[in-house]
Amino acid sequence: MMLRRCVAEAIGTFWLTFAGCGSAVIAAAFPQVGIGLLGVSFAFGLSVLTMAYAIGHVSGCHLNPAVTVGLAAGGRFPVRDIGPYVGAQVVGAVVAAVVLYAIASGAPGFDLGKGFAANGYGAHSPGGYGLVSAFLTELVLTMMFLFIIMGSTHGKAPVGFAPIAIGLGLTLIHLVGIPVTNLSVNPARSTGPALFAGAWALGQLWLFWVAPLIGGVLGGVLYRWLSEEPSAEVTGIPAKAPAA
Amino acid sequence: MMLRRCVAEAIGTFWLTFAGCGSAVIAAAFPQVGIGLLGVSFAFGLSVLTMAYAIGHVSGCHLNPAVTVGLAAGGRFPVRDIGPYVGAQVVGAVVAAVVLYAIASGAPGFDLGKGFAANGYGAHSPGGYGLVSAFLTELVLTMMFLFIIMGSTHGKAPVGFAPIAIGLGLTLIHLVGIPVTNLSVNPARSTGPALFAGAWALGQLWLFWVAPLIGGVLGGVLYRWLSEEPSAEVTGIPAKAPAA
Amino acid sequence: MMLRRCVAEAIGTFWLTFAGCGSAVIAAAFPQVGIGLLGVSFAFGLSVLTMAYAIGHVSGCHLNPAVTVGLAAGGRFPVRDIGPYVGAQVVGAVVAAVVLYAIASGAPGFDLGKGFAANGYGAHSPGGYGLVSAFLTELVLTMMFLFIIMGSTHGKAPVGFAPIAIGLGLTLIHLVGIPVTNLSVNPARSTGPALFAGAWALGQLWLFWVAPLIGGVLGGVLYRWLSEEPSAEVTGIPAKAPAA
Amino acid sequence: MMLRRCVAEAIGTFWLTFAGCGSAVIAAAFPQVGIGLLGVSFAFGLSVLTMAYAIGHVSGCHLNPAVTVGLAAGGRFPVRDIGPYVGAQVVGAVVAAVVLYAIASGAPGFDLGKGFAANGYGAHSPGGYGLVSAFLTELVLTMMFLFIIMGSTHGKAPVGFAPIAIGLGLTLIHLVGIPVTNLSVNPARSTGPALFAGAWALGQLWLFWVAPLIGGVLGGVLYRWLSEEPSAEVTGIPAKAPAA
Repeated sequence: MMLRRCVAEAIGTFWLTFAGCGSAVIAAAFPQVGIGLLGVSFAFGLSVLTMAYAIGHVSGCHLNPAVTVGLAAGGRFPVRDIGPYVGAQVVGAVVAAVVLYAIASGAPGFDLGKGFAANGYGAHSPGGYGLVSAFLTELVLTMMFLFIIMGSTHGKAPVGFAPIAIGLGLTLIHLVGIPVTNLSVNPARSTGPALFAGAWALGQLWLFWVAPLIGGVLGGVLYRWLSEEPSAEVTGIPAKAPAA
Repeated sequence: MMLRRCVAEAIGTFWLTFAGCGSAVIAAAFPQVGIGLLGVSFAFGLSVLTMAYAIGHVSGCHLNPAVTVGLAAGGRFPVRDIGPYVGAQVVGAVVAAVVLYAIASGAPGFDLGKGFAANGYGAHSPGGYGLVSAFLTELVLTMMFLFIIMGSTHGKAPVGFAPIAIGLGLTLIHLVGIPVTNLSVNPARSTGPALFAGAWALGQLWLFWVAPLIGGVLGGVLYRWLSEEPSAEVTGIPAKAPAA
Repeated sequence: MMLRRCVAEAIGTFWLTFAGCGSAVIAAAFPQVGIGLLGVSFAFGLSVLTMAYAIGHVSGCHLNPAVTVGLAAGGRFPVRDIGPYVGAQVVGAVVAAVVLYAIASGAPGFDLGKGFAANGYGAHSPGGYGLVSAFLTELVLTMMFLFIIMGSTHGKAPVGFAPIAIGLGLTLIHLVGIPVTNLSVNPARSTGPALFAGAWALGQLWLFWVAPLIGGVLGGVLYRWLSEEPSAEVTGIPAKAPAA
Repeated sequence: MMLRRCVAEAIGTFWLTFAGCGSAVIAAAFPQVGIGLLGVSFAFGLSVLTMAYAIGHVSGCHLNPAVTVGLAAGGRFPVRDIGPYVGAQVVGAVVAAVVLYAIASGAPGFDLGKGFAANGYGAHSPGGYGLVSAFLTELVLTMMFLFIIMGSTHGKAPVGFAPIAIGLGLTLIHLVGIPVTNLSVNPARSTGPALFAGAWALGQLWLFWVAPLIGGVLGGVLYRWLSEEPSAEVTGIPAKAPAA
């Protein structure tokens, strides 16, 4: 079972990274009719919405190390499964970057120097935001992302709607923060493009692991307290995923 | 229980104000690929949609003094709980403005003089709309917002869909009215940014309390009449919230 | 009961016309950050989505004479109730135009000559489309609108989702046809603004009654045949509305 | 029954092609307020979302030869029904192109030379992408489309939400790939406009049959393996369609 769950996580994270970053690289700034940051925001969100309906019942559809760790902190995911999940997510994101590169490089005037949708701060922030703003943005937005995930998959929330809340929640997060860091809240999604974007992206990659992971843990713990969930009763993975 | 409900309202209103106003301040007018008023409209709406699924079962997810008062007028919320709810909402909105300021001020050329997403009329209306237009817009749109909330959470409405109707209803409200007042329909959301935007915003803040509160009461009473709900039978808070 | 149902239809059609046309008049072409035709398309669609959840269980939420007549042709609505429904819809749309005028005229440089979101063809088509294109567009799009309404409210369709299909269906219809006629598919929505836009709009108003009504009947009959519904078994109004 | 199912497929594919390509031809590049590629992406996606709710219970709502073949490869659709379904889909798409031409040619300055929303690569790719990029894009995106369809209609996925996942999945696919090929993932949708766009479009049409069909088969097989579905148990068409 763990093999299939990890394959599902890898495919899902491939989709999030390929479609999200792909929309940014290929379509965001297309002349006259480009989709802009609004289109990119919908792309990231819809990648999660679609996968949550497609593989939610297979792996829980985390697609994101900060989600996996945050759910563990919130008492919803077994700590021993964190490793395989995160590994599969990173593999999926790296494959996505390879396929996206193969496609995008087929256009005249393709320029890897534009960043390949990698995340950054300071000189590499789209809007020139500094390190503190970047860290705070990633931390707060990931915290709220986990808060939404924990709440919408809670047993008292309406059944079946969580993928809509979570997917469009990721859209909302991008509507706020793309100008600050190109928006990550997802260490795997950051790692794929960073391998192509060059030394600066790898040098700044630490922030897009540290801030989302801290934010994810805070969000998981905050919701757990709010909903008074005794951790002993909810040690399995979320509703739509099979027991470990 | 009231403590947790108020914390949920504070976090939810933090999210509405931080994400909604944040998208306006950070991303709306980003060069070439900015999300525009359409993106800001989705941001406000999705903040409510996501929170309604996450904390609807905790506090009812009002996030807005006009909603709390309007639901009370409609016979759906106990009058004695209005105070704590409104207090929590204002606290959440003020914290949101503080965090947003911390992030936004980290960009080169940040200019608080652009308004920080505060609401206004006359010289401070984005489109130069006068006091009468502003008051009428806030009153009518809040009335219809409560009408939608009352209707979509009615016992005969499809179960589980209310957050979609209410969230996208707030998106629709913003699609119409941002040029008039920067759009409030929510006194708490107006109060947070006004503390930063300066004297003019505080001087005009009365309208964004008075008009939404009147509109909210009208909407609650109108729907109550339409659906022939005898108030004696429905004195608790809406479906997904625990009894007081 | 008919009184409350007609009040619901009037309020709902007020909302469709006020919010839909309001977004076009106030926000579509706002400098730099305007919502464009995409935003207007979402506004019309979301007005129906929100009202369908709010008053679907009261009146069936037609908000449109072509829908009322088309549902009757499809065997879903009693012919004797067409009159009161259509009357209420027109009243709601006219009130919407009055309120919208009161708000919009409060902006500096307001120009009624821009059309006030009225529908037109030939010289009054946004894209200069001629009479034949306009008639065909309104007919085909209204036919497909009724086809979607009939299908998504069918007993075998998933319960509770029809407002999403119908509302976003109206969004889709506007994404295609605004440049042709400013898009109606709704005689009531056309009538309200035409009273303000002047003689040309009233002179062209016939098309926005005739083409949508014919299209609506065709759509209702087509779906009825497709689903093999014997008309005798389904003479009441749709699922969420009370028996007449 | 097969007649009605094929009529449903023809009408649905008419809608996908008419509304999707229509939004591109009529509204995408409208001066100042055009809907852009973001609007076109929503148009294609919403055409499927609306039809899936309207006719999903009649024919399964494939609207696409790659979906029909991919579902057969995934063990969800009987091979003997592929022929009639694909035939009906192509007929619907061709009729859509005829009606769209009748409407679009009624505008001053209509220019068929702009491509009429036909798909292409190399010199006929909107962004100048070469053959390899085009083939890879169509293959990967169709594969993921079938993966989403197979997953969201799986027995363990939440009931009733598949049309949202599938429709918005098609929106997402267009957000990524329109600049590469004008985006097909649907041989029927490609065939209709190609008949009008001229010799170049017919000469490149092979790619928009071959790549989506291969991708569809891969997606169907991949999901079937992932979900461990024994093909013997699921030989009928998906949940909402009647047995053949």
